[in-house]
Amino acid sequence: MTDLLAATAELVDIASPSLAEGPFADLVEGWLRDVPWLTVDRHGDNVVARTELGRDQRLVLAGHLDTVPANDNEVARIEGDTLWGLGSADMKGGLAVFLELARTVDAPTCDVTYVFYAAEEIAAEHSGLLQLFRERPDLVAADAAILGEPTDGWIEAGCQGTARVRLSLTGERAHTARPWKGRNAIHRLGPILEAIAGYEAREPTIDGCTYREAIQAVFVEGGVAGNVVPDEAVLTVNLRIAPDRTLDEAVDAFRSMVAPWTEDGDGFEVVDRSEPAPPSLTHPLLAPLVEAGTPVRAKLGWTDVARFAEHGIPAINLGPGDSSVAHMRDEHVTRDSIERVHAALHGLLTAS
Amino acid sequence: MTDLLAATAELVDIASPSLAEGPFADLVEGWLRDVPWLTVDRHGDNVVARTELGRDQRLVLAGHLDTVPANDNEVARIEGDTLWGLGSADMKGGLAVFLELARTVDAPTCDVTYVFYAAEEIAAEHSGLLQLFRERPDLVAADAAILGEPTDGWIEAGCQGTARVRLSLTGERAHTARPWKGRNAIHRLGPILEAIAGYEAREPTIDGCTYREAIQAVFVEGGVAGNVVPDEAVLTVNLRIAPDRTLDEAVDAFRSMVAPWTEDGDGFEVVDRSEPAPPSLTHPLLAPLVEAGTPVRAKLGWTDVARFAEHGIPAINLGPGDSSVAHMRDEHVTRDSIERVHAALHGLLTAS
Repeated sequence: MTDLLAATAELVDIASPSLAEGPFADLVEGWLRDVPWLTVDRHGDNVVARTELGRDQRLVLAGHLDTVPANDNEVARIEGDTLWGLGSADMKGGLAVFLELARTVDAPTCDVTYVFYAAEEIAAEHSGLLQLFRERPDLVAADAAILGEPTDGWIEAGCQGTARVRLSLTGERAHTARPWKGRNAIHRLGPILEAIAGYEAREPTIDGCTYREAIQAVFVEGGVAGNVVPDEAVLTVNLRIAPDRTLDEAVDAFRSMVAPWTEDGDGFEVVDRSEPAPPSLTHPLLAPLVEAGTPVRAKLGWTDVARFAEHGIPAINLGPGDSSVAHMRDEHVTRDSIERVHAALHGLLTAS
Repeated sequence: MTDLLAATAELVDIASPSLAEGPFADLVEGWLRDVPWLTVDRHGDNVVARTELGRDQRLVLAGHLDTVPANDNEVARIEGDTLWGLGSADMKGGLAVFLELARTVDAPTCDVTYVFYAAEEIAAEHSGLLQLFRERPDLVAADAAILGEPTDGWIEAGCQGTARVRLSLTGERAHTARPWKGRNAIHRLGPILEAIAGYEAREPTIDGCTYREAIQAVFVEGGVAGNVVPDEAVLTVNLRIAPDRTLDEAVDAFRSMVAPWTEDGDGFEVVDRSEPAPPSLTHPLLAPLVEAGTPVRAKLGWTDVARFAEHGIPAINLGPGDSSVAHMRDEHVTRDSIERVHAALHGLLTAS
């Protein structure tokens, strides 16, 4: 079998920072065009390779080609069974697994669409995956999807939703020497921040996955001048929402939570929102992974899994490498982690 | 007697926005050079006129020549006994009184220094009064001082001090989906803001003047990214300090107040400070004003009174016009207010 750690090292040595992943996409496209059982499409810097075996079900295996900028770690280095280097965990280990499967599994038990896409590490407007959903939805149509983001071989099921709420508190300006003539909007933040800090996170369990919601202040801003009682303070709060409720429900609950200290004239605006995605572990294309003993946990962060869920495609995360070293100078991945993921997916694609 | 409302209107019609008060200073200088009992010095855009009668005591009467920018109110307009227009209250009414006294009181019972100075309405670096203290301290030397800032004819005694404290709270960054791995610095503001909002102001009475201290948040800032638990939050607080304690004492008291929620690694920095000034109402040059029935109250804001106090010169505010209309489009002053101040000061300079 291919040495997947060495194969990952070769991918690390091909620079592919966001918006400059074109040359890497060219190479991937070339490798896949040599595979007789795949139909390959290139769209922008995205490469999509599909089997067309007429199976009842189609599974997407998707991974992004790009990395964050180098941090003195752009050269791959193998020590024993560990590979160090930019993108080794996020997510060239996953890409190496997908490329190996694409080139070796000629008759999978479901049809497979391998999606290698651009620009995941930067603002959503550049996302290659969104570009495909928008411009070539036929290329990403499927019954279920697996993203190769680093999970160290665990199934990370679904993902939590995220919303950002911008809460504007009003007050009335006055000179700070006569503050009783005004009303301090910054002071009004006090009990609201105390309530947020004291929030006890919901921890619902769905399909055996325990999620953990969060409410976190992420920005605060206010002030007019050094001698003026401020008439506005703006708090931006990030809500992380488990998939047992909708984003609207979570936003309404937050609104009720701060209601004792807000009033008419204050602003409450949802400035950014992505729905949570359910775990989908009972889907017939995904359940065999669980049955085969792949360990399962909830995905707390937000990933492109949610993009698939938005399009009605159940999706999970499953890839080699530890997400906690992603974007770090000491990013690395182990042979064991890569091989476990390969074994799990190979089993899924070839099980009778 | 001169019509002081009309005289004030003439001064309003001479534009003198900060840093462009030179032509007005030229006129004032010319008027005063015609007065035989005055020695006139020009320094920058400051004009100083002194009697040199060899009296035991010397009193400064000081006022600034400049105004804030016009707000569609640069033309003087008299309706009945009210004058409307830019600077009518702050402080060309006071200047009209001082010019009248300078030109009519030829033998005051104390020596008098009339100080007409530039650039009070803008940053301290431009202050004409500070320029005089720095470069020509002989011109502003005195035993006591009266500033003609608008007090509607009240003696506003002394002034409160002011300090700005910059409190930096630290935390630890983490992804907002896993906030328990970090520590939210913005959340730490909650109890501190509650303590500040709940602060019960000290209200000491000195020489019959009741001061009212204040602690007010004036700026707040924090945040890293929409999905990051922030590791710093900065709160700037303005302390207003009565003259029965020093600025250092007030800052220490504030430090103790927030101590339950701050810790090593947080920042606590005094970024701006001006000491309070005592009421000085028992000074022999000022006491006669009180004895003559001029009403007295504490000065809560900070004025150039504190500059004199810093140089060991007891000072008070006393001028026509209401400070609450200063810097407003509908700025105005009444004949009664101007004449009361003139009468009080004329009495002071001529009492046996």
